[in-house]
Amino acid sequence: MNRIITLQQSVMAEDEKFASSIRERNARMGLLMVNIIGSPGSGKTTLLERTALNAGLAMAVIEGDLATDRDAERMARLDVPVVQINTRGGCHLEANVVERAMDSLPLDTLDVLFVENVGNLVCPAEFDLGEDFKVAVLSAPEGADKPLKYPFLFASAKAVLLTKTDLLPHLSFDTGMFDADVERLNPGVPVFRTDSISGAGIAEWVDFIRFKAREKRANVR
Amino acid sequence: MNRIITLQQSVMAEDEKFASSIRERNARMGLLMVNIIGSPGSGKTTLLERTALNAGLAMAVIEGDLATDRDAERMARLDVPVVQINTRGGCHLEANVVERAMDSLPLDTLDVLFVENVGNLVCPAEFDLGEDFKVAVLSAPEGADKPLKYPFLFASAKAVLLTKTDLLPHLSFDTGMFDADVERLNPGVPVFRTDSISGAGIAEWVDFIRFKAREKRANVR
Repeated sequence: MNRIITLQQSVMAEDEKFASSIRERNARMGLLMVNIIGSPGSGKTTLLERTALNAGLAMAVIEGDLATDRDAERMARLDVPVVQINTRGGCHLEANVVERAMDSLPLDTLDVLFVENVGNLVCPAEFDLGEDFKVAVLSAPEGADKPLKYPFLFASAKAVLLTKTDLLPHLSFDTGMFDADVERLNPGVPVFRTDSISGAGIAEWVDFIRFKAREKRANVR
Repeated sequence: MNRIITLQQSVMAEDEKFASSIRERNARMGLLMVNIIGSPGSGKTTLLERTALNAGLAMAVIEGDLATDRDAERMARLDVPVVQINTRGGCHLEANVVERAMDSLPLDTLDVLFVENVGNLVCPAEFDLGEDFKVAVLSAPEGADKPLKYPFLFASAKAVLLTKTDLLPHLSFDTGMFDADVERLNPGVPVFRTDSISGAGIAEWVDFIRFKAREKRANVR
């Protein structure tokens, strides 16, 4: 288990500048960076655990939480390089602290850097961290009406994950409405249905990330 | 079914002033105002539906959402006076628009005014709407680790609701840890475990609200 580094997020700085700087660095290195956004308990950390266990991706994680380093501990247990950012009440990660976190990670050995944003469907959607794209994570128990109620994230994400699908038999979740609403907000966006108990859907998600990482690397040469 | 009024939340005004004004008005009227806070899909609207169906409380609701008036429609179907506020991306309700919403409600006929804040465990916890108290709503599928990860709300709420307890048999939710963490953050806070399928826990919650409403009214005389 590797050492966990915890950073405190401070004042909002000139964040666009930091986001641009991150984007340029990643473009030079051919490093894919993915910003994972979803509510508290939507299954973001579990998804990243499952992703790490699926061989063939060199990954690191930046964890954003108001408090605690529990999520970083979970990643470190899998020997995933990780930095924990505590926002101390801040509702989203900011690019300046993300850039500092990146300095502690072995970026040149990675295929993909995941940022697990603060659990929140609203604010993180509005802030650029210099990532390649955002991913929207919704767990089935949250309900099928959420894409239309939180349209900003679902319209801008480059992938949508519906997690905890093992619970669907116990829920009144209208999958037809969910699919139609997501497609209306974001035509053609890939939707992955995952169940971290059985592992269903994880291979497809990892394939998608692997494809995107390869695409990013190819654009450097 | 009554008419739904939808307000758009505009720029942040001098919000403390509005919160004080609301608090003073409610104190004069003896009207209890409760600010309901939880993640998207934690069951806030369903809780309010169940509360409305439980006889003996004259209630109204102010609904906060980024977009849509679906939640207001659900309350209106039960003949609950309701105003929908659309924050258009804003991550929490602000007191100035809540005060305008109150002007459209029959306040002098009410025992309790519920404000269902924007689905978000973070930002709404930090904004005073002039309410008597905040209530934290967490659904069981979100996980037992959430109080420590989102401590600001759980430490300041005057009641905690654990919803969707019907799903507990299908989850690995550590109720002992949850209870201990809540008690540590907020000693003595009442915790209601509700299941809106069977209705378990709703009567206790409504009794609590009825008691608080009576207490508020008694303080006017």
